[in-house]
Amino acid sequence: MPHTSAAEGTLAQETLAEERTALGLAQRARAASRVVATLPAATKDAVLRHLADALGSRAADLLAANERDLAAARGAGLAEAKLRRLSIDAGKLAEMAEGVRQIAAMPDPVNGVSRAWGVPSGLRVEKVRTPLGVVAMIYEARPNVTIDAFALCFKAGNACILKGGREANETNAALARLVRASLAAHGCPEAAVTQVTTSDREELKALLRLEGLIDLVIPRGGEGLIRFVHEHSRIPTVLHFHGVCHLFVDEHADAATAANLAVTGKTSAPAACNALECLLVHERAPAAFFAEFLARCPAGVTVHADGAFLDRCRAAGGVPAHWQPATDADWGHEYLDLHLAARMVGSMDEAIAHIARYGSNHTDAIVTADAANAGRFCREVQSSCVLVNASTRFNDGFQLGLGAEIGISTSKIHCYGPMGLEGLTTERFVVRGAGQVR
Amino acid sequence: MPHTSAAEGTLAQETLAEERTALGLAQRARAASRVVATLPAATKDAVLRHLADALGSRAADLLAANERDLAAARGAGLAEAKLRRLSIDAGKLAEMAEGVRQIAAMPDPVNGVSRAWGVPSGLRVEKVRTPLGVVAMIYEARPNVTIDAFALCFKAGNACILKGGREANETNAALARLVRASLAAHGCPEAAVTQVTTSDREELKALLRLEGLIDLVIPRGGEGLIRFVHEHSRIPTVLHFHGVCHLFVDEHADAATAANLAVTGKTSAPAACNALECLLVHERAPAAFFAEFLARCPAGVTVHADGAFLDRCRAAGGVPAHWQPATDADWGHEYLDLHLAARMVGSMDEAIAHIARYGSNHTDAIVTADAANAGRFCREVQSSCVLVNASTRFNDGFQLGLGAEIGISTSKIHCYGPMGLEGLTTERFVVRGAGQVR
Repeated sequence: MPHTSAAEGTLAQETLAEERTALGLAQRARAASRVVATLPAATKDAVLRHLADALGSRAADLLAANERDLAAARGAGLAEAKLRRLSIDAGKLAEMAEGVRQIAAMPDPVNGVSRAWGVPSGLRVEKVRTPLGVVAMIYEARPNVTIDAFALCFKAGNACILKGGREANETNAALARLVRASLAAHGCPEAAVTQVTTSDREELKALLRLEGLIDLVIPRGGEGLIRFVHEHSRIPTVLHFHGVCHLFVDEHADAATAANLAVTGKTSAPAACNALECLLVHERAPAAFFAEFLARCPAGVTVHADGAFLDRCRAAGGVPAHWQPATDADWGHEYLDLHLAARMVGSMDEAIAHIARYGSNHTDAIVTADAANAGRFCREVQSSCVLVNASTRFNDGFQLGLGAEIGISTSKIHCYGPMGLEGLTTERFVVRGAGQVR
Repeated sequence: MPHTSAAEGTLAQETLAEERTALGLAQRARAASRVVATLPAATKDAVLRHLADALGSRAADLLAANERDLAAARGAGLAEAKLRRLSIDAGKLAEMAEGVRQIAAMPDPVNGVSRAWGVPSGLRVEKVRTPLGVVAMIYEARPNVTIDAFALCFKAGNACILKGGREANETNAALARLVRASLAAHGCPEAAVTQVTTSDREELKALLRLEGLIDLVIPRGGEGLIRFVHEHSRIPTVLHFHGVCHLFVDEHADAATAANLAVTGKTSAPAACNALECLLVHERAPAAFFAEFLARCPAGVTVHADGAFLDRCRAAGGVPAHWQPATDADWGHEYLDLHLAARMVGSMDEAIAHIARYGSNHTDAIVTADAANAGRFCREVQSSCVLVNASTRFNDGFQLGLGAEIGISTSKIHCYGPMGLEGLTTERFVVRGAGQVR
């Protein structure tokens, strides 16, 4: 790939000379987006496969750039968890490449006709899927997001502006150079991706005000980042807050199933946004549930329970010493850790009201053998994903058969739930006539 | 309807005592939205038919309230066009009632399953249409919007907060009383509609910041109103700017069809957002087009044309004396009047570039007999509605077979194009399993 080095040299200079202002880079992204919107599927997929290969063949450069970021971050005393997210290795690069190949293999969402119909005037109307234009993604120091976000945005026919955490600037710059080289190798505009390295909040605010040039902003990361972007964005913003997920054990629940869903929902990935945070148990739930729950719940889990729940557990065999009585602060709390809130409720009404008050519209589930109760729960709990007799951990694009996702939206506008290629497009109307006037 | 008066009395007092703050009324709307979201279709339709009947049977009250608004507005020197929009009469009430009956007759969008599939874990996934929750509509002194907006929001399972122009406060209050009486008569929460009468911009700003309680804001009216709402809203906002609609006369256009689309597109409703504002003509368009255009174009229309267009018209029979040479300010200008911009272009590329630069993503059309050119125009012009051989005036919910609309969105997020019942809902995931864990 001899063109790569040349392109990199040129682009690095352009970055310094021209991309200083948010306006300039957004204008270039906008111009590129018009080209990307009409690229044939085969070209987009070739770019993505080229990129996947490059993530392997250029691993040494990427790992060296990442080492520079890590050294600086260690020097600055970055917390261990953040260093882990910032760090990449050959295994992570292979995962990123595999993700890109999977996106390349997915059907092209652009130009799909979801519905076509005629109207009395003789016009033929089609609803056609179409790219959004320019998508700006604001995220933390996680280099894998750079590749995921580009691949999804590009496959959906969009240009993207990527602003990652500044601790990952060197790694992201190296990744963006690979992306540009893959674009250039297939004759696509390199401004289909723009990496923003500013750590100046004023410059980020300026970007968030470019409503005519950027169509969608997606902040991804901690609540502070999301709130900052939401507060300052004049552009439509899809919010991906974390999840306060509930499991309601109905009076008609199978005890073993309920206990298994409760325990694994908490323990299989406690820091995931779809991990269980609060267990609601009907006061007429089978007595066997409590013994099953106690038997399966690992010692590492701290349950924060109301008095009634603790009483039932005590009757069923005993309450571990480290469990704690729940306080009001436990309801609606996202622990993202081996802590679980638990509460007895007198009725499904009470469970639904608890979820409406304390839930986050992310993921909520019911365990029940009663079809009517399941139906009612599904109608009345209006979270982005509601499950019956299945773990909250299934709310994830891959698990639901939707493929790679850019996040899980908990705002109802545009996209609600896992947001993948479809969420990165919109639909417009194409109408064909024979000279009809009105 | 003896209950009506009692309800009105109670509500008027509540309005004074409790609804003072934006927070209080939004909290009531939110609570009501949870009930409205799960109302059976038959109940919603009965409320709407009750309201349609009341718009006839209670006409005297409504017209008296409107007369009070009109008297005050005349006293304040409101412009004639605004007085016309503010004014209602028996004919307008009958139209409003008919609109409500049509919405009642439409299928219920809520709980519709757009897609269902299985995944390897054995889970069964459904994508289910679901209400947004609370919709706030901010509009000008047009009382018919009060009824249209309530009917559409309610049918889609939402509570709504309606803030109309203050000149229509008395009329809107009378209309809101009818709506509440219809809700009460069928056991539905009256807070499914909240009429806000404040003319205090600070209070409106406070409303626009209630992001946890209001799900969507729809401003409808002049650009100043839309900009104000957009600037101050922390809530997702669907923008309904007006339209700068283009017609491109391709080299393969039929001359008579092109002239007919151009002239009627401008003249049939010059102030409509889908009226034609700019004509782009390929330099190899049939010469007969210019003669046809001159023959059909009424004297009342002022064409603002570039030199090349004027030359062609001159050669085809002469340029009317009141036509004007175009200036840069004519491109992208929304006249909303009997003025039309016209420009010759050297290629379809140039036409598409003009539309990308000056268009408003509303409605653009091509006249051509060439299928390949039509296809390319439809792919590359990504406005909310693109038409081939048909008038831009067809971009309207009824004309496209979509039914009543709350506006035409020119932002790509959530809803792009005519926004009706579907745009007032979202989709979420309902998943059924047999105890699967992850």
